[in-house]
Amino acid sequence: MIGIDWGTSSFRAFRLDADGTVTDRRVAARGILAVEDGRFEEELLRQVGDWLADGERQVLMSGMIGSRQGWQEAPYLPCPAGPAEIAAALGTVGCEGADLRLVPGLTCTDAAGTPEVMRGEETQIVGVLEEMAPRALVCLPGSHSKWARIEGGRIVGFATYFTGEAFAALSAHTILARLMRSAPPDPAAFDRGVARAGEPGHLLHHLFGVRTLGLFGRLAETAAASYLSGLLIGHEVRAALPGDGTAVHVIGSDELSALYARALTACGVVPVVHAEDAAARGLVRLGREAEWR
Amino acid sequence: MIGIDWGTSSFRAFRLDADGTVTDRRVAARGILAVEDGRFEEELLRQVGDWLADGERQVLMSGMIGSRQGWQEAPYLPCPAGPAEIAAALGTVGCEGADLRLVPGLTCTDAAGTPEVMRGEETQIVGVLEEMAPRALVCLPGSHSKWARIEGGRIVGFATYFTGEAFAALSAHTILARLMRSAPPDPAAFDRGVARAGEPGHLLHHLFGVRTLGLFGRLAETAAASYLSGLLIGHEVRAALPGDGTAVHVIGSDELSALYARALTACGVVPVVHAEDAAARGLVRLGREAEWR
Repeated sequence: MIGIDWGTSSFRAFRLDADGTVTDRRVAARGILAVEDGRFEEELLRQVGDWLADGERQVLMSGMIGSRQGWQEAPYLPCPAGPAEIAAALGTVGCEGADLRLVPGLTCTDAAGTPEVMRGEETQIVGVLEEMAPRALVCLPGSHSKWARIEGGRIVGFATYFTGEAFAALSAHTILARLMRSAPPDPAAFDRGVARAGEPGHLLHHLFGVRTLGLFGRLAETAAASYLSGLLIGHEVRAALPGDGTAVHVIGSDELSALYARALTACGVVPVVHAEDAAARGLVRLGREAEWR
Repeated sequence: MIGIDWGTSSFRAFRLDADGTVTDRRVAARGILAVEDGRFEEELLRQVGDWLADGERQVLMSGMIGSRQGWQEAPYLPCPAGPAEIAAALGTVGCEGADLRLVPGLTCTDAAGTPEVMRGEETQIVGVLEEMAPRALVCLPGSHSKWARIEGGRIVGFATYFTGEAFAALSAHTILARLMRSAPPDPAAFDRGVARAGEPGHLLHHLFGVRTLGLFGRLAETAAASYLSGLLIGHEVRAALPGDGTAVHVIGSDELSALYARALTACGVVPVVHAEDAAARGLVRLGREAEWR
């Protein structure tokens, strides 16, 4: 089968053999925002047409490709949901020469009734379910970081944090930008930011401190971006950790995972870190659960 | 005398008689960022040269004009500081035909040792000191909102919140911008945002809710900006209120003061609201304390 993790900004395809081993892969900066006029079928053929010509027929896609802005909407499935529920809710997309299915996103509501959504992360989580205890917490860092609670091998609920986008907007479009000079990541400054997040005061107060520390010569321009990153991730991690010793798993890019692992460790929790291509394993698992073959 | 509140983006001058009554005023969008090549003396003469020609000599200036980016730096004065300490620390600026003084900004450190600064707000606070109890809290909303603690008629400490800038950056430069359509303020949506700030979950989580409420049709595009404003101001107010019944005074523009009064009232504290030209009264008071005449 072919598994595709097709997100907002990137396209990642995996050719999988009967054992679920990745035999080939294609990665392109062809996320759904880069595909014009809804020409997703054309794009699919451009990326993996040779695999299809080679005899592959089953294609399972996860991510924003199943959103309103994607190829076809796969309605959100409510939590709790595990591999069985997700596999039973796959959407079907008409596509000549392929049996194309869509993984639905998940939804839940927080304690106060505000809705939550994820699309793509559920597949990554499914990909590492077998490596975690029946009860665990999964952190998927990103523009919109997700923290999912796993119980009995199912996703029972999750919360999203706007951390990545907040960092991008605050570091580029506020007065803080003037205090920053682009430089390699500064781990010590990141750690200071994480520690600051644990001090009294709200995030909105701590943000102004980025400015005053710069003004008073206590934070170098080359360190300010790492400090801000640590401050925001530190706030997120402290807010998301339940504090009950639940094991935490991190799934993400090497760079982001390393930052989150660092922040979590500073907060007393050493996480298990998984590679981003948990998506490939999740697609295999869902394909199997769907009894597609 | 002439009192001038000269900030980053605006210039406001008051002509004051011996009683401290404002007899004339000039307001211009000539903040320090609009004045090129440090030509502050030229700008001063352009704005109030006729008052000086008319015989005024004493000019007292507060705000960012006394910063490193302004006319001349007036070093920050450490808290606690009241009118007497501030008046004793006025800076002197050489200027032909005028006796020009600068009000110093204030500094303090928060519980964790991170520095805080204000410049201009101290003069506004001094302007309303006589109208408040010896122990009070003063909120000065803005891009960088200040919350100052007053004890024994002096400013003993303060904290800054990055609320206004965060709102501007988040509402214009994140995915939330796509869910917003410009519209008149929506008080009900603002109130919802304030209430949301009191629910469980961190600000970074609540921010994502702005998106999901929009996605699920529970927040209109025309209401989203007001909701976000209420969410941020609600977080600030809840974090800044000591919860011990201390009286709260608000000094700011009519529009911002109304929003903060609304948020404070929702949190159970009905504030005393003062007009922004508290600065004029503060300049009069500091001029008197300096025994300038």
